Amino acid sequence: MSPIYDRVALIGLGLIASSMFWGMKRDGLAGHVTGYARSSETRDTARRIGLCDTICDTAAEAVKDADLVVLAVPVGVMGQVAKEIGPHLKPGATLTDVGSVKRQVIEDVSPHISETVHFVPAHPLAGTEHSGPESGFASLFDKRWCLLVPPEGTDSAAIDRLGQFWEGLGSFTDVMEPDHHDLVLAVTSHCPHLIAYTMVGVADDLRRVTDSEVIKYSAAGFRDFTRIAASDPTMWRDVFLTNKDATLEILGRFTEELFALQRAIRQGDGAFLHEYFTRTRAIRRGIIEAGQDTAAPDFGRSR
Amino acid sequence: MSPIYDRVALIGLGLIASSMFWGMKRDGLAGHVTGYARSSETRDTARRIGLCDTICDTAAEAVKDADLVVLAVPVGVMGQVAKEIGPHLKPGATLTDVGSVKRQVIEDVSPHISETVHFVPAHPLAGTEHSGPESGFASLFDKRWCLLVPPEGTDSAAIDRLGQFWEGLGSFTDVMEPDHHDLVLAVTSHCPHLIAYTMVGVADDLRRVTDSEVIKYSAAGFRDFTRIAASDPTMWRDVFLTNKDATLEILGRFTEELFALQRAIRQGDGAFLHEYFTRTRAIRRGIIEAGQDTAAPDFGRSR
Repeated sequence: MSPIYDRVALIGLGLIASSMFWGMKRDGLAGHVTGYARSSETRDTARRIGLCDTICDTAAEAVKDADLVVLAVPVGVMGQVAKEIGPHLKPGATLTDVGSVKRQVIEDVSPHISETVHFVPAHPLAGTEHSGPESGFASLFDKRWCLLVPPEGTDSAAIDRLGQFWEGLGSFTDVMEPDHHDLVLAVTSHCPHLIAYTMVGVADDLRRVTDSEVIKYSAAGFRDFTRIAASDPTMWRDVFLTNKDATLEILGRFTEELFALQRAIRQGDGAFLHEYFTRTRAIRRGIIEAGQDTAAPDFGRSR
Repeated sequence: MSPIYDRVALIGLGLIASSMFWGMKRDGLAGHVTGYARSSETRDTARRIGLCDTICDTAAEAVKDADLVVLAVPVGVMGQVAKEIGPHLKPGATLTDVGSVKRQVIEDVSPHISETVHFVPAHPLAGTEHSGPESGFASLFDKRWCLLVPPEGTDSAAIDRLGQFWEGLGSFTDVMEPDHHDLVLAVTSHCPHLIAYTMVGVADDLRRVTDSEVIKYSAAGFRDFTRIAASDPTMWRDVFLTNKDATLEILGRFTEELFALQRAIRQGDGAFLHEYFTRTRAIRRGIIEAGQDTAAPDFGRSR
């Protein structure tokens, strides 16, 4: 594939940015890729493993002359980083981000960006429980959705070009409105993560069941929760703080449903439980048919 | 390995029983294996795929002369099946089960068993989201724990022999007291399942987010929940109805923790969230070090 952007700058060098780099190299999507991370240890690691063509010691230097700048930092610091790089962005450049929350990022970043720069927020729906510059791999985005969430009035050529870039990385793309994005993600991602963290926290806290019992006997279901609850704490703290309203709304719905099931258990209402547990099977089938998960038992885990 | 039991009878032919059969054949643990399932369709399938050496049309016929009889039916019908086979069990035989709840099974089964039979309840902590006679495979129990939960006064030679049998199938074994078993499993299995069912139910119910959005964008975390929520509805209905007290106790703890996190989100208490999300990472590490899950990202899913 011929490069979609001549120069790309990655700000933040964690799982997503490092996977984007290896993906760009695999697919020939960028001429030259610069990278920057706030921690010098991360920059050293990146240099050691060949992550990015050039690692810069300041964000300003990394974004200089870049045609595409990617903010791949926790949602809570997007505004601060935008302020830092704003004055150094090339006129005509596209600025994007990969944050899991969109309304707050748009509010935080927009004030720092000149009108000559196209800001096209995006969110690749892909990840693993691992984090850091060494966790990336080229195929992370293959067959996953990347949502483009441009504010009203964004240049449509800039949106299309960023869409082609993500499709080049192997993704499917869709355009979505920010508030709807934040609600959908509260359901498919943010609440499941909070619930997994909670359940693992309960297990860890319980004095009458030891941690070693929890660990030994985890294969009965619990270990799936621990994978999600091993995700990056800083990233997830920021997600909940910045998608507060949608998260609290969905948690309210969740608690309501949980209480209904709890009541059915207390009252011995087997028919209610059976009907509920049958209905939820259909969604799993849909996900497998849509190619968004494997049908192999236990995710085809290596045993 | 030389057979541990000459004749084994499997009552119920779902995921666990069929995996036990293929495991016994792989490891040479039984001379002859008979099988019975209530549904004639299941018995036909079993005959077609060579599941069991002999498929019988009644449970009484299947258990005749068996040295080991395995109850592998939903927890809610254990008592009824025990009543049916009780009079036909060979003196000196061992009767076991593979139910996910132990106190209730002991109460339901014991009254129907003569004193000449050794009843040794057990629970292999292994499974997948698939069910039925065609879902079994020989390696299901490899490196998984099987808990033996004998009532007080059970013959120790019978317990040891059943332990050897499960170790022959590839499992680690432990002996546990029934009430403690039911509490530990409420934490590591029953509550995680209920919570996953609930979250998937919420997603399915939400009018402002369509099912197709939930399906397309599931890779951000939700799809892990759908695997658990695709488990057998009858089995899980019975688990919750028969482990009511422990499940409700742990759900109470869960809700309390969830409310604390919800409050931290509402108040913007980032430090509380970050500390919580950091602590839960340690349990994941423990599970991987104990060989109870893979360290590969996303469970090493086939992509």
